[in-house]
Amino acid sequence: MPALVQYDEAAPEARAVFDAIKTARGVPDVNNFWKALAVHPPTLARTWDSLSQVMAPGALDPLVKELLYLAVSMTNGCAYCIASHTAAARAKGMTEAQYGELLAVVGMASETNRLAEALRVPIDPQFE
Amino acid sequence: MPALVQYDEAAPEARAVFDAIKTARGVPDVNNFWKALAVHPPTLARTWDSLSQVMAPGALDPLVKELLYLAVSMTNGCAYCIASHTAAARAKGMTEAQYGELLAVVGMASETNRLAEALRVPIDPQFE
Amino acid sequence: MPALVQYDEAAPEARAVFDAIKTARGVPDVNNFWKALAVHPPTLARTWDSLSQVMAPGALDPLVKELLYLAVSMTNGCAYCIASHTAAARAKGMTEAQYGELLAVVGMASETNRLAEALRVPIDPQFE
Amino acid sequence: MPALVQYDEAAPEARAVFDAIKTARGVPDVNNFWKALAVHPPTLARTWDSLSQVMAPGALDPLVKELLYLAVSMTNGCAYCIASHTAAARAKGMTEAQYGELLAVVGMASETNRLAEALRVPIDPQFE
Amino acid sequence: MPALVQYDEAAPEARAVFDAIKTARGVPDVNNFWKALAVHPPTLARTWDSLSQVMAPGALDPLVKELLYLAVSMTNGCAYCIASHTAAARAKGMTEAQYGELLAVVGMASETNRLAEALRVPIDPQFE
Amino acid sequence: MPALVQYDEAAPEARAVFDAIKTARGVPDVNNFWKALAVHPPTLARTWDSLSQVMAPGALDPLVKELLYLAVSMTNGCAYCIASHTAAARAKGMTEAQYGELLAVVGMASETNRLAEALRVPIDPQFE
Repeated sequence: MPALVQYDEAAPEARAVFDAIKTARGVPDVNNFWKALAVHPPTLARTWDSLSQVMAPGALDPLVKELLYLAVSMTNGCAYCIASHTAAARAKGMTEAQYGELLAVVGMASETNRLAEALRVPIDPQFE
Repeated sequence: MPALVQYDEAAPEARAVFDAIKTARGVPDVNNFWKALAVHPPTLARTWDSLSQVMAPGALDPLVKELLYLAVSMTNGCAYCIASHTAAARAKGMTEAQYGELLAVVGMASETNRLAEALRVPIDPQFE
Repeated sequence: MPALVQYDEAAPEARAVFDAIKTARGVPDVNNFWKALAVHPPTLARTWDSLSQVMAPGALDPLVKELLYLAVSMTNGCAYCIASHTAAARAKGMTEAQYGELLAVVGMASETNRLAEALRVPIDPQFE
Repeated sequence: MPALVQYDEAAPEARAVFDAIKTARGVPDVNNFWKALAVHPPTLARTWDSLSQVMAPGALDPLVKELLYLAVSMTNGCAYCIASHTAAARAKGMTEAQYGELLAVVGMASETNRLAEALRVPIDPQFE
Repeated sequence: MPALVQYDEAAPEARAVFDAIKTARGVPDVNNFWKALAVHPPTLARTWDSLSQVMAPGALDPLVKELLYLAVSMTNGCAYCIASHTAAARAKGMTEAQYGELLAVVGMASETNRLAEALRVPIDPQFE
Repeated sequence: MPALVQYDEAAPEARAVFDAIKTARGVPDVNNFWKALAVHPPTLARTWDSLSQVMAPGALDPLVKELLYLAVSMTNGCAYCIASHTAAARAKGMTEAQYGELLAVVGMASETNRLAEALRVPIDPQFE
């Protein structure tokens, strides 16, 4: 079983990150991803810091950022990430119809990506 | 050099798809992807038909669909697809700030996807 | 530029492998892949030895083995491998119609592979 | 748990696809993949339609198509797809010896694909 | 369930490999990977032979080789391989601090790899 | 052509990062990767900051970290990253013999990773 570090057994540096996550998200406990990352507190701290910056409101809508995160996770085939970001997208308002269309785009892009590489298509001059 | 089938040398079934693409997009010629796919007209026809359905307006905004397509293409590392869908996203209104945030999300997700798999994080019960 | 080791500058161990490849294939020179691998003669020797065993006639037809090799190379998006194994498959008799159907299967499988992972489909009991 | 849509709760469009699959394959029920895809009936319908076209008898033997599908699934590391297409290949006549050689080709190609990319081997002129 | 071939039911060629592994590693039984590979004795024999050569002491320290093997396994997202090579690396002396830094490098490289491809960065002349 | 932002045209936030990189590495100019990332100064700054932390001396030797970075880049098939990190590893002392063994490990791991997934090998209890 991969080690999950619980709050009580976490190093002070990790505990501070857990506290920051709980405050930012208004949740009583952090997800398993963060408990697993706590085996290396510097990586835990850096990852939370980077993720907070990247997912903060900006030029892209928070739901759109979450859909993009989910699309990448599906493409990488990361089961944990698909599960957690599907839940996060739903929490941010993703409808079933939007979820269906996301699936369709991810599947279609995976097919044409593969075909373009299989055919070694040269890049059109107007794309450069 | 991969074979690119030009309009004049295309089989009738392929030429009909080229015509459909030119009409739908209002362009004088099709991109290299379609010329390369024309080596197998049934795959050309099926791919265009599927792509048209998937990218049609729906529950997700056309620009969002294009950003998702681009995110998948970046994750799959398909250079042709990245070039063509970056151009398509810009044509649909993607700003430089949105492009920058897209890059940031794709990079960040690639990192956490890998970490979640490396740590073999068990899926939290609330995600099921 | 990646280093390509030519016959005259190759170490004796590498030169022996080059000779074995030229004899087995009846060609005057080896492909760039082998010249590049010659930077590490033990890996060159082991790879040629393994490849010869794996691609030898057996329960699967040589053309089928080559098509499988090409399908894997397309899926991994290795441009060099796609180019060399497309040429090899043609040399072993792959027709344009077979090539088109191979492309179609690779593209389709890439799409459904992604969808199955995106949906985290549980394995049916009858498949176990 | 990912949602699996059973026949009785499926939308009419999805139920029609389930019926088509059951008739085409002569089976009493569809596999979990199709039940999962039924969360988005248009993607379910399009996927079944495309798959039927791609896997229909043609220039490649049905067993060869199935072996290619399995090789791609193994390369993409899709556990569900590996399980279902291994079963399908056996049902179409794949022997244990053929399965063993398929494994050997997939493993070997994965190694040389990686080596060719690691060495950034330039494509030989005769392959263009 | 994937087939695991136990010693008593293994073919003579597979049993000889099992014996070689047990002797080389000083263990009473082989891991599941080898039992699964025994469905195709030639691939079992070739894989053990190659692995023994590649992982033998050389210019790189055995622990470094094991860390590299683990980094590749994490990048490929192979859960079995991550589990077995994490255990192997610990057995060869990997500390928790080293494990944490390995995770950090794998995650960081996955992010910058993706960004470099997404941006289609041209290779600097001094790297050629 | 992907945009490369030169020092003179860079935004102040990007120029500060360019200065930091030049100072840390003692070089007159930054690599193309950083010029390309400068299209989004926050991502440029965050990436340099994270990379500096991750690659700083620690429990793993700097050359070992660089070899791990290179192994991940080879596995992801990122040509730019392979070129730049091969150069970096050589600058940190990687010998040709070490490079050859690195290649061998990356190739071998890619093969066994694929085989373990293809066979869906269950994880041995002692690895948990």
